[in-house]
Amino acid sequence: MKVCRRSTFNAAHRLYRPDWSDEKNTEVFGKCSNPNFHGHNYVLETWVEGDVDPETGYVIDLKILKDLVKVHVSDKFDHANLNLDCKEFEGIIPTAENILMVIYNLLRENLDKRFQLKVKLWETENNVFEYEG
Amino acid sequence: MKVCRRSTFNAAHRLYRPDWSDEKNTEVFGKCSNPNFHGHNYVLETWVEGDVDPETGYVIDLKILKDLVKVHVSDKFDHANLNLDCKEFEGIIPTAENILMVIYNLLRENLDKRFQLKVKLWETENNVFEYEG
Amino acid sequence: MKVCRRSTFNAAHRLYRPDWSDEKNTEVFGKCSNPNFHGHNYVLETWVEGDVDPETGYVIDLKILKDLVKVHVSDKFDHANLNLDCKEFEGIIPTAENILMVIYNLLRENLDKRFQLKVKLWETENNVFEYEG
Amino acid sequence: MKVCRRSTFNAAHRLYRPDWSDEKNTEVFGKCSNPNFHGHNYVLETWVEGDVDPETGYVIDLKILKDLVKVHVSDKFDHANLNLDCKEFEGIIPTAENILMVIYNLLRENLDKRFQLKVKLWETENNVFEYEG
Amino acid sequence: MKVCRRSTFNAAHRLYRPDWSDEKNTEVFGKCSNPNFHGHNYVLETWVEGDVDPETGYVIDLKILKDLVKVHVSDKFDHANLNLDCKEFEGIIPTAENILMVIYNLLRENLDKRFQLKVKLWETENNVFEYEG
Amino acid sequence: MKVCRRSTFNAAHRLYRPDWSDEKNTEVFGKCSNPNFHGHNYVLETWVEGDVDPETGYVIDLKILKDLVKVHVSDKFDHANLNLDCKEFEGIIPTAENILMVIYNLLRENLDKRFQLKVKLWETENNVFEYEG
Repeated sequence: MKVCRRSTFNAAHRLYRPDWSDEKNTEVFGKCSNPNFHGHNYVLETWVEGDVDPETGYVIDLKILKDLVKVHVSDKFDHANLNLDCKEFEGIIPTAENILMVIYNLLRENLDKRFQLKVKLWETENNVFEYEG
Repeated sequence: MKVCRRSTFNAAHRLYRPDWSDEKNTEVFGKCSNPNFHGHNYVLETWVEGDVDPETGYVIDLKILKDLVKVHVSDKFDHANLNLDCKEFEGIIPTAENILMVIYNLLRENLDKRFQLKVKLWETENNVFEYEG
Repeated sequence: MKVCRRSTFNAAHRLYRPDWSDEKNTEVFGKCSNPNFHGHNYVLETWVEGDVDPETGYVIDLKILKDLVKVHVSDKFDHANLNLDCKEFEGIIPTAENILMVIYNLLRENLDKRFQLKVKLWETENNVFEYEG
Repeated sequence: MKVCRRSTFNAAHRLYRPDWSDEKNTEVFGKCSNPNFHGHNYVLETWVEGDVDPETGYVIDLKILKDLVKVHVSDKFDHANLNLDCKEFEGIIPTAENILMVIYNLLRENLDKRFQLKVKLWETENNVFEYEG
Repeated sequence: MKVCRRSTFNAAHRLYRPDWSDEKNTEVFGKCSNPNFHGHNYVLETWVEGDVDPETGYVIDLKILKDLVKVHVSDKFDHANLNLDCKEFEGIIPTAENILMVIYNLLRENLDKRFQLKVKLWETENNVFEYEG
Repeated sequence: MKVCRRSTFNAAHRLYRPDWSDEKNTEVFGKCSNPNFHGHNYVLETWVEGDVDPETGYVIDLKILKDLVKVHVSDKFDHANLNLDCKEFEGIIPTAENILMVIYNLLRENLDKRFQLKVKLWETENNVFEYEG
């Protein structure tokens, strides 16, 4: 049985490699490389797979999962600049793929080993990403 | 090839174990344990996997799948109180996980063995569940 | 300028007049009259119209509007049985129309007179209601 | 890591086998067999699975994926009659299943072998299809 | 109080004036003029404004409104070719604007005079139309 | 008859008055005042009201409206930092209300006088704004 909690966070970011020239950054990342940043309403689905507890009928209490995502993801990234404010992205280009791997690792460390984890991220309504480790 | 029919049903329920005290029920299930019930617009996706029939270009006629879900799920649970009205939940706490397993079993019994079945349930726009037996 | 805060609450209800026979209730309200209740995920949009404050660029701080809706609507009706738990519906059939008028009045009393108010309610994805006093 | 580009195309179609009588076509395909066609807003999700390039943080630049879908799918099928205008459906009944297999093959031929491909199609908001070869 | 019933119908159409040359039709209507038609999943919202009946708590029983839309709109236009199958569009180019005026008139004739009527139509997720006579 | 074109743009912004202390900015604007910015996927609906041209069946060709919004709104604000990159917001705090007034004025200047204009903006899925001059 898989259970999912949907959440959101709004952040600014910029795609940019400091070891590349501005020209190279613009060539590869286009307008996503704007030095003054742009931003998104990120939508995150956190999927946890495990057995249904016969006593409670829950895989995991979704209030616990909601709080886990809040503490380890939303509180860190909501209304933040991923490049400048978040140590989790030091040395990491905050593409959606990298954001999702960072989120996966933050949640994986804090989720009981008996659960499998999958995360899904909408950067825009047309660009979606999925990762399960 | 996987094909899916989306459907909805609106129901009341309460999370509650009669072998627990009211205090224990409230501690575990919170406001979901309200003795007077609360309710949801449940959204169900029924996914059937199988080969495409070369003659019709269908895995299964979706009108047949629609009727199957109507007869075995919606007609039973729509505008019902899952705890009080539905024999399928006798002795079962109607958490979304348990609701989904009940639905899976009802559909599995009535779907040709050559098809694989997966069901997905939204209890709210933020809480989602998936089960494939 | 109109500004809106979207929110949700999940509740059980039953359409029923005690001064009518069960037959009459069923004839008029159909399965919505089920004695054991059913329920919905209600989605509410609260629209406030007013001038943009030149100092803040806000009509009203949406955090204030969010809290207003939480205190006067969601905290009262979420995970409740509208017929049994809510004194606001004593003597009132909780049709979506009546729910929306009750919500309008609760918010209108607590919103500054300089603002106009409009509320919109989804009872299901296909049934929507709008009221502005 | 899986990445997805969502796109749409609007097309007319008819479900019909020329080797069947009109009666048989109507019996099997119902109103979908209307000789004068009907149509849909198709929504397509194109999912590509691969490794994240450590240099760019991308699995594949989504602008490239967007263009791939535009050239090989949308430009061919948008505002078209799938039965009459599209050689891809010669001898093929344009059921959603067959449309999705045609789309899969068009994209598979034009996508680097190192990527896995999955496509998902909404024919209506209630009928969805998924295929991965 | 305004109440709304949402519904859908899937149809083929073509924008074309027989008194114009093909060149003129293509110049004005672009790919919407494809002689072989294309199609859409139309989404219709039917809004009825009136007083809340103090006895039932309804403006109008939404089951009645649902049936009204089914009989006068969906049954006529669903899975149809608006240009070829529907006498309502004889001599009328089925632009979304004209479709909406036709729908408005069909519903207006069959709705009690004490109600005001407004209709809203999505031709695609990005193109929307609203009409109230 | 009202017609609408839906569009999106992704931008960074910060709510901040330079004539206020950092403390005052934080007190009033909270985390929206983050000096390093945050961002949103803005969704814009542009509604134009006018008569239906009896010759074309259009109020306005939606391709024209689409281009108008692209040139005067999306091309300016998409992937931009509203505070730093956009001269339209010099001296203006980019609250959603102010963004919407700026957009209204940009479109109003470039839209034929015979049309009425209304704009609607989603900053998040829960915060919505509407303005008609």
